[in-house]
Amino acid sequence: MLFKVEMKVNIPYQMPAEQAAEIKAREKEYAQELQRQGKWRHLWRVAGSYSNVSIFDVADNAELQDIISNLPLFPFMEISVAPLCRHPSSIHEDDR
Amino acid sequence: MLFKVEMKVNIPYQMPAEQAAEIKAREKEYAQELQRQGKWRHLWRVAGSYSNVSIFDVADNAELQDIISNLPLFPFMEISVAPLCRHPSSIHEDDR
Amino acid sequence: MLFKVEMKVNIPYQMPAEQAAEIKAREKEYAQELQRQGKWRHLWRVAGSYSNVSIFDVADNAELQDIISNLPLFPFMEISVAPLCRHPSSIHEDDR
Amino acid sequence: MLFKVEMKVNIPYQMPAEQAAEIKAREKEYAQELQRQGKWRHLWRVAGSYSNVSIFDVADNAELQDIISNLPLFPFMEISVAPLCRHPSSIHEDDR
Amino acid sequence: MLFKVEMKVNIPYQMPAEQAAEIKAREKEYAQELQRQGKWRHLWRVAGSYSNVSIFDVADNAELQDIISNLPLFPFMEISVAPLCRHPSSIHEDDR
Amino acid sequence: MLFKVEMKVNIPYQMPAEQAAEIKAREKEYAQELQRQGKWRHLWRVAGSYSNVSIFDVADNAELQDIISNLPLFPFMEISVAPLCRHPSSIHEDDR
Amino acid sequence: MLFKVEMKVNIPYQMPAEQAAEIKAREKEYAQELQRQGKWRHLWRVAGSYSNVSIFDVADNAELQDIISNLPLFPFMEISVAPLCRHPSSIHEDDR
Amino acid sequence: MLFKVEMKVNIPYQMPAEQAAEIKAREKEYAQELQRQGKWRHLWRVAGSYSNVSIFDVADNAELQDIISNLPLFPFMEISVAPLCRHPSSIHEDDR
Amino acid sequence: MLFKVEMKVNIPYQMPAEQAAEIKAREKEYAQELQRQGKWRHLWRVAGSYSNVSIFDVADNAELQDIISNLPLFPFMEISVAPLCRHPSSIHEDDR
Amino acid sequence: MLFKVEMKVNIPYQMPAEQAAEIKAREKEYAQELQRQGKWRHLWRVAGSYSNVSIFDVADNAELQDIISNLPLFPFMEISVAPLCRHPSSIHEDDR
Repeated sequence: MLFKVEMKVNIPYQMPAEQAAEIKAREKEYAQELQRQGKWRHLWRVAGSYSNVSIFDVADNAELQDIISNLPLFPFMEISVAPLCRHPSSIHEDDR
Repeated sequence: MLFKVEMKVNIPYQMPAEQAAEIKAREKEYAQELQRQGKWRHLWRVAGSYSNVSIFDVADNAELQDIISNLPLFPFMEISVAPLCRHPSSIHEDDR
Repeated sequence: MLFKVEMKVNIPYQMPAEQAAEIKAREKEYAQELQRQGKWRHLWRVAGSYSNVSIFDVADNAELQDIISNLPLFPFMEISVAPLCRHPSSIHEDDR
Repeated sequence: MLFKVEMKVNIPYQMPAEQAAEIKAREKEYAQELQRQGKWRHLWRVAGSYSNVSIFDVADNAELQDIISNLPLFPFMEISVAPLCRHPSSIHEDDR
Repeated sequence: MLFKVEMKVNIPYQMPAEQAAEIKAREKEYAQELQRQGKWRHLWRVAGSYSNVSIFDVADNAELQDIISNLPLFPFMEISVAPLCRHPSSIHEDDR
Repeated sequence: MLFKVEMKVNIPYQMPAEQAAEIKAREKEYAQELQRQGKWRHLWRVAGSYSNVSIFDVADNAELQDIISNLPLFPFMEISVAPLCRHPSSIHEDDR
Repeated sequence: MLFKVEMKVNIPYQMPAEQAAEIKAREKEYAQELQRQGKWRHLWRVAGSYSNVSIFDVADNAELQDIISNLPLFPFMEISVAPLCRHPSSIHEDDR
Repeated sequence: MLFKVEMKVNIPYQMPAEQAAEIKAREKEYAQELQRQGKWRHLWRVAGSYSNVSIFDVADNAELQDIISNLPLFPFMEISVAPLCRHPSSIHEDDR
Repeated sequence: MLFKVEMKVNIPYQMPAEQAAEIKAREKEYAQELQRQGKWRHLWRVAGSYSNVSIFDVADNAELQDIISNLPLFPFMEISVAPLCRHPSSIHEDDR
Repeated sequence: MLFKVEMKVNIPYQMPAEQAAEIKAREKEYAQELQRQGKWRHLWRVAGSYSNVSIFDVADNAELQDIISNLPLFPFMEISVAPLCRHPSSIHEDDR
């Protein structure tokens, strides 16, 4: 089941640079692991911003919450979620 | 080159049902042709709405404008556009 | 799987009264059938408005879209959707 | 008498982790006590966020204010309130 | 129990002048009857607008909904509602 | 002459608790004095928030500014103002 | 007593051109009479729009409402009002 | 003197196609004449929309108003204006 | 050439009181000097706020930018600008 | 390929003056180098603000992201991006 998730990162000015670097490194590792599992199906940068557009493929709302709330950058992001499904004009039978 | 495009359809109450049906049929045909060409890479319905989230893969801004402005539903949609590119945490080398 | 759905009704001024009455009667029948099936788990009026707050219990996003887009008042409502799940402070084991 | 309350938590970056943990522990205890009393009738997490959707069943506006303003996280939340009542299309005689 | 209600009137351009006058006359009669009953405790015009600020004193949310949804101008107003209660700095013991 | 004023309090997280308590105590004393003078005609809490809805009765705009800008919490509030006058449907001859 | 009033004109597409011209002619006459009386102290066009910024000098809120609600274009304008008073850094003793 | 002007076109559904075509033809002619005069310095389409971003070079605010308010599409556009000037980091001595 | 400028002051909580007082004193002196030069034509307080509405009379956009960006409070204000010109219904031949 | 980019600078109050000066110096140097390369085609100040309107000419979205995210002030700006292309009413054959 798909969700479009948009995340905008706001690192507090007060955060020490090493702490920020460490959180971002964990975020990257976590994001890549979820991509390899097929749960984070797409991850794109929005050009000209510190934001991304993502497509998650999860079993249900609870799994989405579990994945998002464990993002290392979770406390420092504005996040919006939209549930997706197959479009009737899609040429695919599934939700590709 | 990728763009996320969100489209929300607002058919005027005054539009005759047959006209609406005819426009929607042309919209579907057009959308499927562009999907087959690989230019409309993804097309999802936002659950609970008459909206979609789409990913377009076009040569440049001018081609995006050409495709979007020729949508049969173009005059009846609110449309927002965000330019996308590869995310540094993506596990793919390209913009998949 | 739960979704909070808020619906605000805007009947066009031009709609004949009989047509509006007929649509509302079908909406009521449809809403009650879905409540009896357990898919429309809660339905409340927002006091002082022509709006409701609803909780849907569906199999997945596609079923939510199927139910909402078939509401007789669908073309005449502003609708917002939020995916829900069990809260860690809930005293229930399920999503009650 | 029912109210829908939405709460979005924003913990200040400067708050020490132990203080945050202590406030959250009190919040959980308080929320569970109110659920057992039947005053906090429903409590759901909004998937992909640090937010909840709640339904309160209180005697009047004053009791709602009393309950909400005593939430340990009250100073750190954006809160919105909507008064609810039975919907004319509900299949229940009460406000269930 | 008090509610602040703000109402902004938008008469459609297409409405015949006599119909508008008839609705406004019924609105005035209805508003004055509710004031005499003590349920519409205060009614002020917002200077420079076709809007009012009102204070309603009702038994519960259901009565508020009953009163508001029966306003003759109800379909032609944007309405916002805020539940009120006694302020701890009030010099009155009640909600005056 | 009446004004509706809405005030939403935002105490900075960094403010020491004693300072906040001292400011709130002065705010209460000041608010009660103005109520006794008849200038702060109504003061209600918005249920579920750290906000109030107030009705001021002042000689002119300058007196409103004088009163509001001297509120001890003035630097820590979002404030909105609407000028009011007698409504043509009021049952009172004055602006009660 | 001064108020800043901003007015944005939205003539409905359906209004016949002669009716629009007649309303605008009355609006102009009315605006000029109020300027001559000193009640409409300033009237400026916002460049690039069908809007104005105005300063009214009236006895009280009720007179402001009387003047604004009698504007021939009143039903076709979005209007916002802000009460003004002398600024403490003004070089004038009055509200010039 | 430069202004950035953004224009978003909203043709009413009720406008006959020939009328719309005639207005757009006049708009194009007018826009090209102003470009040739150097007053409409830049004119770009926003990709994926029926909008433009324009840079006007005019003598003063009054000339801007004169040019914009005479656009044949003026009644059917949302327009926003921002005054521009040379940026201190520009490599040009003028406002190029 | 006229511009309406609205300025809303937000002094950071962390700023020492003496620093704030010193900045405000310089702001006042600067504002009065510009009023005496005729460039800051009107300066009004918005009643119930820490905001002003101002009318500037400057040679061009560059002078406006020069004046505004040198305000001692510039880094601590939200500022909005609207270019003005003579209104066709004004009774004055100039932009008074 | 052109993009309109608007940037609004918000320097945190806590940032030491020397650090701010150093960042701004690097920003200026970087902006001028990009202008000389022809990639930052236009750079204008918005009068009355700490903002700019810019036109970038880049190969694709990825280059835009590369340029913008390397701005020394990037963490301290609100940035909005709009993709541009030749307007059908332009008198130029290219995107000038």
